Amino acid sequence: MNYNPVTKKIVDELIGILGKKNVTIDVEKMETYSHDETSADEYGHMPEVVITPNTTEEIAEVVKLANRELIPITPRGAGSGLSGGAIPVFGGILLSVEKMNKVLEIDEANMMMVLETGIVTNEVNNLIKDKGLFYAGYPMSLETCFLGGNIAENAGGGKAVKYGVTGRYIMGMEVVTPTGDIVEFGGKLSKDVTGYDLKQLIVGSEGTLGIVTKATIKLSGLPTAKSSLLVLYKNPKDAIDCVPVIMSKGLIPTGIEFMDKLSVQTSCEYLNESLPYQQAGAMLLIEVDGTNAAQVEMETEAIGDLCMEQGAIEVYVADNFTTQERIWSVRRNIAEAFKVVSPVQSLEDIVVPIAAIPDMIPELDRISAKYDIKIPCYGHAGDGNLHATLVKNPDSTMEEWHALEPKALRELYEVTDRLGGKISGEHGIGLKRKKYMKELMNPAELKLMKGIKMAWDPNYIMNPGKMFDLD
Amino acid sequence: MNYNPVTKKIVDELIGILGKKNVTIDVEKMETYSHDETSADEYGHMPEVVITPNTTEEIAEVVKLANRELIPITPRGAGSGLSGGAIPVFGGILLSVEKMNKVLEIDEANMMMVLETGIVTNEVNNLIKDKGLFYAGYPMSLETCFLGGNIAENAGGGKAVKYGVTGRYIMGMEVVTPTGDIVEFGGKLSKDVTGYDLKQLIVGSEGTLGIVTKATIKLSGLPTAKSSLLVLYKNPKDAIDCVPVIMSKGLIPTGIEFMDKLSVQTSCEYLNESLPYQQAGAMLLIEVDGTNAAQVEMETEAIGDLCMEQGAIEVYVADNFTTQERIWSVRRNIAEAFKVVSPVQSLEDIVVPIAAIPDMIPELDRISAKYDIKIPCYGHAGDGNLHATLVKNPDSTMEEWHALEPKALRELYEVTDRLGGKISGEHGIGLKRKKYMKELMNPAELKLMKGIKMAWDPNYIMNPGKMFDLD
Repeated sequence: MNYNPVTKKIVDELIGILGKKNVTIDVEKMETYSHDETSADEYGHMPEVVITPNTTEEIAEVVKLANRELIPITPRGAGSGLSGGAIPVFGGILLSVEKMNKVLEIDEANMMMVLETGIVTNEVNNLIKDKGLFYAGYPMSLETCFLGGNIAENAGGGKAVKYGVTGRYIMGMEVVTPTGDIVEFGGKLSKDVTGYDLKQLIVGSEGTLGIVTKATIKLSGLPTAKSSLLVLYKNPKDAIDCVPVIMSKGLIPTGIEFMDKLSVQTSCEYLNESLPYQQAGAMLLIEVDGTNAAQVEMETEAIGDLCMEQGAIEVYVADNFTTQERIWSVRRNIAEAFKVVSPVQSLEDIVVPIAAIPDMIPELDRISAKYDIKIPCYGHAGDGNLHATLVKNPDSTMEEWHALEPKALRELYEVTDRLGGKISGEHGIGLKRKKYMKELMNPAELKLMKGIKMAWDPNYIMNPGKMFDLD
Repeated sequence: MNYNPVTKKIVDELIGILGKKNVTIDVEKMETYSHDETSADEYGHMPEVVITPNTTEEIAEVVKLANRELIPITPRGAGSGLSGGAIPVFGGILLSVEKMNKVLEIDEANMMMVLETGIVTNEVNNLIKDKGLFYAGYPMSLETCFLGGNIAENAGGGKAVKYGVTGRYIMGMEVVTPTGDIVEFGGKLSKDVTGYDLKQLIVGSEGTLGIVTKATIKLSGLPTAKSSLLVLYKNPKDAIDCVPVIMSKGLIPTGIEFMDKLSVQTSCEYLNESLPYQQAGAMLLIEVDGTNAAQVEMETEAIGDLCMEQGAIEVYVADNFTTQERIWSVRRNIAEAFKVVSPVQSLEDIVVPIAAIPDMIPELDRISAKYDIKIPCYGHAGDGNLHATLVKNPDSTMEEWHALEPKALRELYEVTDRLGGKISGEHGIGLKRKKYMKELMNPAELKLMKGIKMAWDPNYIMNPGKMFDLD
């Protein structure tokens, strides 16, 4: 693409639209916006200017300017993404929604909330829990991520078995299109077939089809009872084999998380936490919630019994908030812990049919042995979504890693494909997995995606270089 | 559009692809395919040829032929649609999926089922109930409609409050694109962000973006306990006022259906059924289900008590299958009953935020009085989806009806829009509501929809003339 540079004149025009304090070309300040949670060395790229608009109208004006001047725009939430979706690969304008974090409405009668998309996801639940309500979108990074990023990636998380992923709760949105129009999709409506469902097309489109400035989210009644089971198994296979059995019994836990020994240990050491991982080769962390304590207790017991029948070593039940938080914190911090202990890695996000998970485990072992790369594995087993992570062997050189990692990854993706799976369940394609789209996806399907992109973004200025390249 | 006629040569080519018994130009046989459940007089149109393919590959070949020869194709399910979506307005090829009704796989371990889309929706549940499983898509016409039609319209129904609508259960699909490619979207996966979610774009696109030939649907554990409450109110307002109160208490019934007196009476007389409607001005039909009988009983009682507190006259609880079926049959047959009693009508499908339903009722009364048109009202109150139906006054002439009905409808849609609603919750836009898209929708939003259509269907041969016209 032949984009134009962001000249002094363009910066001045941006200042005219947004005010001086919302435009920066300071290199130190811009550095923060040059990467996300993927490796900065591998995927980072500096923007030419960073802007922090305060209104939808300002964003629309900037998008029109970008079209007129042929300058790429990269929208950004909290930068907690794991696929490089918010990285300004072509420079240009980095548009952060961080200042658009207002709560516009808490509508209890409709059980909906209208928010700007720069709000931290966890904030949403803090605001409504006293009203007996909750928002079931629950990515693992909820303490830092923004709602806007969750929408862009269709974020999943630890409650998706029961509650589904972000998209289910996005009932309406305001979007600035790639040509600078302001449109509203959906509304405070449970159902709507008035035209194509553009709202759900935007969800998961990684900011390539527009910038979501406001969202109407659906709230649920806050579960008043909750329990977590920490289930210990001899080895990963025993644990994973148990998952489809639980699921097919009609028991619907909130989530079923899988952690192998290496993952638990690494996170525990990072957090200075003690879980009884020494005796176990793998664990499941299963959550049950509901509005009736007796029902939750009954389901917890039924699941615990089933796990023991299926070969678990031990079942610990955490029925109070403090213990639950401790256990979940171990799960939530695995990625962070690995980044500290072993920064050279590739955090993956494969998703397979749940009944195919048992077939995936020996394949991970095989690939690990073949390439001498550790593959600790954890993730949302109840969704078939495994964060198998390729980690560099500390004894190997960077050259060896760069030679082996792409081959191991390629093989992981091929196995995933063969088992009926896909390469991303919740982290997205972004920059990181883009080349595999071309290799693994039916060209006709890719052509349909490109068709939408070209129709909506004729100048190819909206988050270019993500998900797929145009021909 | 300048389409070419279906010549003898084209018919012969179709016979070559499909075999003689799957191609007809017999006028009597084709008549059945010239209308759906909307008025044949008003919306009906004869196809030039009707085909009943048996395989996806045959369909792809036909679509390629249609592109080459510039002949429109109208895909059709059971013809139970309520918006004229399956009517061949430009003649051409009517493609019925009626022979593609095979069950390809019942995958209990993954709780998924793979089906051809010509299967009758109710058949799906009959096939799996002995396995303790069910498919939660539940349109009111489930005894006749096809899965393919449900997908095309994103059908809702009587269980959507708890289970959502069709789209939530469509995990994968095989589609013949408007240019004749065969593509597969999704799979047996709970989560998938590998590219744009084209699957959910197809859902509800009314056959304008391709022909869905196979679908992978998600199954749920069959609820083993169920009860229905029939709640009587003095008037529609009392009944409707109760709905947001139930919803905001965190109680999640399977469905909350509203029926005004005229609707109940008409259906009861049609079915020769007796419900105690004489004493009531309106009713709610509320269903609760679950896997635990005690829990269901508790929720049923809580909802019943809440209704009485909120001004219900009486609550009848139907806790056995026979009584439940009797009551639900009354609800399901309202549309059919009205068609018999009063064939000249416009069955509507407005959807508003649930808390706005109480404001809608007096508006319906006002419009009814202003235009001297009866507006019986029933529908999925728990979703804000009301089938307010404009019915011709028997004393008025057809000329008067044709003069008044468009004005009343226009006013109904304007009120809906003002209350934050949309003109269709589950029936679709199709032919019937197309002109209102232009009037009520933001031109920028419509442009985005048209952009997708033009990118995917450059020859405009796939179900043309539905949802919106190209410029």
